[in-house]
Amino acid sequence: MVENNHSTDSTGEFKRSRSRFDDRILDDPGARWPVEPGRYRLVVSLACPWASRMLVVRRLLGLEEAISLGVADPIQDEKSWRFTLDPGDVDPVLGIRYLAEAYQLAEPGYEGGVSVPAIVDVPSGRLVTNDYLQMTLDLSTEWTAHHRPGAPDLYPEPLRDEIDEVVEAVFRDVNNGVYRAGFATTQERYDAAYRDVFSRLDWLEERLTGSRYLVGDTITEADIRLFTTLVRFDAVYHGHFKCNRNKLTEMPALWAYARDLYQTPGFTDTVDFDHIKRHYYQVHTDINPTRIVPCGPDLSGWTTPHGREALGGRPFGDGTPPGPDPTAASR
Amino acid sequence: MVENNHSTDSTGEFKRSRSRFDDRILDDPGARWPVEPGRYRLVVSLACPWASRMLVVRRLLGLEEAISLGVADPIQDEKSWRFTLDPGDVDPVLGIRYLAEAYQLAEPGYEGGVSVPAIVDVPSGRLVTNDYLQMTLDLSTEWTAHHRPGAPDLYPEPLRDEIDEVVEAVFRDVNNGVYRAGFATTQERYDAAYRDVFSRLDWLEERLTGSRYLVGDTITEADIRLFTTLVRFDAVYHGHFKCNRNKLTEMPALWAYARDLYQTPGFTDTVDFDHIKRHYYQVHTDINPTRIVPCGPDLSGWTTPHGREALGGRPFGDGTPPGPDPTAASR
Repeated sequence: MVENNHSTDSTGEFKRSRSRFDDRILDDPGARWPVEPGRYRLVVSLACPWASRMLVVRRLLGLEEAISLGVADPIQDEKSWRFTLDPGDVDPVLGIRYLAEAYQLAEPGYEGGVSVPAIVDVPSGRLVTNDYLQMTLDLSTEWTAHHRPGAPDLYPEPLRDEIDEVVEAVFRDVNNGVYRAGFATTQERYDAAYRDVFSRLDWLEERLTGSRYLVGDTITEADIRLFTTLVRFDAVYHGHFKCNRNKLTEMPALWAYARDLYQTPGFTDTVDFDHIKRHYYQVHTDINPTRIVPCGPDLSGWTTPHGREALGGRPFGDGTPPGPDPTAASR
Repeated sequence: MVENNHSTDSTGEFKRSRSRFDDRILDDPGARWPVEPGRYRLVVSLACPWASRMLVVRRLLGLEEAISLGVADPIQDEKSWRFTLDPGDVDPVLGIRYLAEAYQLAEPGYEGGVSVPAIVDVPSGRLVTNDYLQMTLDLSTEWTAHHRPGAPDLYPEPLRDEIDEVVEAVFRDVNNGVYRAGFATTQERYDAAYRDVFSRLDWLEERLTGSRYLVGDTITEADIRLFTTLVRFDAVYHGHFKCNRNKLTEMPALWAYARDLYQTPGFTDTVDFDHIKRHYYQVHTDINPTRIVPCGPDLSGWTTPHGREALGGRPFGDGTPPGPDPTAASR
């Protein structure tokens, strides 16, 4: 979650900062951070849409054993993300209580925001990157030697321009648009963000009415990036961020599309509605001072038939669906 | 609006006070406050569900010329309801800037809440009553001599026990239940209120599936009291008060029932979604500190066909629908 990396400016507009730590882990033994199974730990919050992209990509590509996973408490305290879900409140691999400690090792005296997803170098305990925009792509392109047999190509070469274009528009208007709506401090800025969100959702609704996936006929990075926002839409963005022209459930193609992905192996077990709801409603006291978490919405619809198979499409292309997470039992 | 007459107690539960001023206007020339056309002024906020009940009853019974109407600004200031929608910020009949002035004439030094609906005696400028539970019934039973030809019987003698019973349950769990949810300051109190709201809505959904109106086969006081909450449900209670298991639009019978009433002459022109939304979102800074008013929801569904005629029912019984408000042009 990169909420700590933002500010609302004097005109009331929410600004999301670029990630500060943008080192990359590369398929190159001579690189500062070479690809190496077991060396890195991914730290996420299950609440966070940006971190959840990594969870989905890691599952679809079968990188669970190559890159271990630490899950932070969905409720940050004044020192930000903490490992209070682990025994002794300490991450069992990194041996730290706060993710901020890995940031300090990367840059002593660092005073900026502490965000997830974050990849930490286990031997040194240092943060390598919190660059959520590059991180998922690198799992697809740099970690190929460690992909599972049958891993899909989530960022196919011939489609990259189209994926990049869709991803950029969806980022601006939807992924980040809901935050611009929710954290606006003036009516004017909120109104503008609301318009962006629903204009883009209308555009997506049309695009997805005749097409099972966003780009091409298989699941790509573009679908994953849209999914992690859609799955939070009715649970938090609709009410908490006032993106309330309609619920996702009122947009037939988008709602069926989101359920299709949710029910696809590799997506479902990355979604934790309890973490999602508690994080947003309890952390953002500027917009929910009572910290009360709504009991709704009724989420039972997520497992209902979506009928999207009728549109064709090959979810995993020439690949296969992932099996169960082999590391799930050890968490 | 009787929000000023409430408090949230030490357990986090919202408590609604009884109205302080409960004098009645009676069909008795010797009464302290006798029925007399032109003598009294009804002061409302179009935002307020309790005040809106009076607007509907007054319209259905044709009492617009007998009892004049003052409309307060939906946004109270620290002196409460004010006439800032009128020229010079003064109510043109009462000659006052704040409704509180009529309260002071009724009880000099009064320091309690100032609520609408309120009935003020025009000659003396004194508040007569703010007893929203009794007020609508008295329009039906005490003002009969001034009802329009064809006015419906909204509180028929043979059905009063059943009406009273339904009205009490709906008050506790729905009309006031949404406030208990929205103003709860602990998760436990909120959870309990949420359960009450949706249990009762489920009960109503079932009751209204085979029956056009709540009691008998005509519109009664019970329908009016439920309507003024339902019409605010998706616009404010769903998000602002966290009554978000589902929207009203997701409950087929209740949604059709609410649209049926909304489209019935005498109801439609009492609903002002702009006043409703601005009031709740801008006044309750404890739960919406940014005071930003959501752009949604899309309200266009309110005018769509409801199909409830198929259930039979005689909306106005042996009476007729009201014509246009004869006083509308003068406001």
